[in-house]
Amino acid sequence: MQNLRIPGPTPCPEEVLKAMGQQMINHRGPEMAAIMKEVAEKLKYFFQTKNDVLVLTGSGTGGLEAAAVNFLSPGDTVLSVSIGVFGERFAKIASIFGAKIIALNFEQGKAADPALVKKALTEHPEIKAVLVTHNETSTGITNDLKPLASVIKGAGKLLLVDAISSLSSINLPVDEWGCDVVVSGSQKGWMVPPGLAFISVSPEAWKANAESKMPRFYWDLAKHKASIEKGQTPWTPCVSVIVALHTALIMMEKEGMQNIFKRHQKIADFTRKGVKELGLTLLAEEKYASNTVTAIVATEGLDVKKLLKIMREEYNTVLAGGQGPLEGKIFRIGHLGWVTENDIKVTLDNLKLALPKAGFRS
Amino acid sequence: MQNLRIPGPTPCPEEVLKAMGQQMINHRGPEMAAIMKEVAEKLKYFFQTKNDVLVLTGSGTGGLEAAAVNFLSPGDTVLSVSIGVFGERFAKIASIFGAKIIALNFEQGKAADPALVKKALTEHPEIKAVLVTHNETSTGITNDLKPLASVIKGAGKLLLVDAISSLSSINLPVDEWGCDVVVSGSQKGWMVPPGLAFISVSPEAWKANAESKMPRFYWDLAKHKASIEKGQTPWTPCVSVIVALHTALIMMEKEGMQNIFKRHQKIADFTRKGVKELGLTLLAEEKYASNTVTAIVATEGLDVKKLLKIMREEYNTVLAGGQGPLEGKIFRIGHLGWVTENDIKVTLDNLKLALPKAGFRS
Repeated sequence: MQNLRIPGPTPCPEEVLKAMGQQMINHRGPEMAAIMKEVAEKLKYFFQTKNDVLVLTGSGTGGLEAAAVNFLSPGDTVLSVSIGVFGERFAKIASIFGAKIIALNFEQGKAADPALVKKALTEHPEIKAVLVTHNETSTGITNDLKPLASVIKGAGKLLLVDAISSLSSINLPVDEWGCDVVVSGSQKGWMVPPGLAFISVSPEAWKANAESKMPRFYWDLAKHKASIEKGQTPWTPCVSVIVALHTALIMMEKEGMQNIFKRHQKIADFTRKGVKELGLTLLAEEKYASNTVTAIVATEGLDVKKLLKIMREEYNTVLAGGQGPLEGKIFRIGHLGWVTENDIKVTLDNLKLALPKAGFRS
Repeated sequence: MQNLRIPGPTPCPEEVLKAMGQQMINHRGPEMAAIMKEVAEKLKYFFQTKNDVLVLTGSGTGGLEAAAVNFLSPGDTVLSVSIGVFGERFAKIASIFGAKIIALNFEQGKAADPALVKKALTEHPEIKAVLVTHNETSTGITNDLKPLASVIKGAGKLLLVDAISSLSSINLPVDEWGCDVVVSGSQKGWMVPPGLAFISVSPEAWKANAESKMPRFYWDLAKHKASIEKGQTPWTPCVSVIVALHTALIMMEKEGMQNIFKRHQKIADFTRKGVKELGLTLLAEEKYASNTVTAIVATEGLDVKKLLKIMREEYNTVLAGGQGPLEGKIFRIGHLGWVTENDIKVTLDNLKLALPKAGFRS
């Protein structure tokens, strides 16, 4: 089997693949309603929230669009706290739909500084909402969300969080930290294929939704809320991934939420240690290094494109390159969802052999 | 096995389910690019077009939203030719994003009249684009699209077609009839699960796209066009349904496009004949009765809700009810995609037994 070590899509367990291959059922029938209701409850558990958690058919980016267009109005001032490509994407979406963006961008590989967020909020009292990335997939950084949320909620702002590549793998107690809207994606830590985005909505966010004037139809969360109470979605959903998710959530409950977090922490530590032992340099400030994806700087003559090709063709291991301004400058190892320490051991063993062939001088 | 006889999701062949259960691959890797490029070419064949055909992760409604927001601007006058719930939905989406809708609504169960469309276009020269449903799933009507397209293109208007539940099952030569934008959905005649929408875009529509001012990001088709040329999508797609579609398209090529149309015609004729022999009444004007879904009027004391329950619980057969104003007034039999005459024979045999139990006096 191919060792798929990108930060999503992630490999799926056999049970999940079996569920993916199940015959179609009526998306408005009682079997689907039972599954949908259980899925919604189990998602709430992993989101650590009493808020509604809605299931959208689309990619994570669709979830970000839903987060923007349901709670903002054209002309609203929005603070974008960005630490990479996905932070910028979130801001871009809000901007396209008419929000005025105040951009607070941090250097690639660094986390967001709560003090600077506080400063921006003080300087711009007109800010209505704040966009924050929990885990920036492009740089392998996990923001310390708790103090960020504290500053943002302390200032009475709406907090919209991109947790696409963290939630389920890294602790994010949505209610405790006061996150109003939180987005995740099925192909990340949830051990199922891409096709679904999940979004939690706080009571305060629902109030903003009632007043929000950005145009929406497909992503209209009020329609999703009305439907999920019947165990349905307003439009025909990606039935197979929902059925597979139901299976995956049961597996995740068996492993235990805290054990999943610990496993990701342990495997991430093992990855970072192994990478450094190979003489490689981590992009991330280690205090904020992500437990789901590790970004490695292409130092010492390393040709990233060549390395990815050799790893794929000679070692059956698929790694990810850099995105946007980091293309060619870093490569990334995904370690989220259905992953063991051995998957990483094999990856590191192969990297050791492949690196010199790709120009790396350790 | 359950006899799933709703107009989508439709049952999937064993080969397609096996493809659904395949392990994840890199959505930006060479294996996926090869599949995507073949899928795009094969879709063009079934759309009977040289236009771009783009693959979106979302439901058919997402495809309709993409059709609206990519080619229109707020304030544009748009003629909505509607013959049911899905026609109204298309207009509603365009309206929410700022189009001025001139509604030309036809009675439920009737097809659109090209002469009245022509009249509306003459009376309102400010009309920029026309929304037309090819096959109205809620009433089981197939519009005679050729003369409608002729009138609309003759007047120089942009033609946006909802062919979600027809394309691949009912002849729709996109280029020959001059359809600018055509939307279909994976869970209909394509024999794969829900999760994807397909959309074809003519050169004239791309010109409109360049000038269109409706806000868009997730559904931005220019981004999809740039990506598909690399065998990719701009956002992580529903990989499994794409892999399954690749399998289904090969099966469809083997059967042959004309043979698929003939099979749907034959099975639809068989359905309508059988339904009438049971003493039931078709909703559709028979000349325009759809080859993918048959709507039946609840006459002679028939309790639709009860009938659907009895058919599901006692006869393992799942039928669809009515939608919107037709709820409780009709029921529907889906016969599209992976369907044989025997599937319908079983359905009709069971209906014969279930009808009297649901209050029907023949």
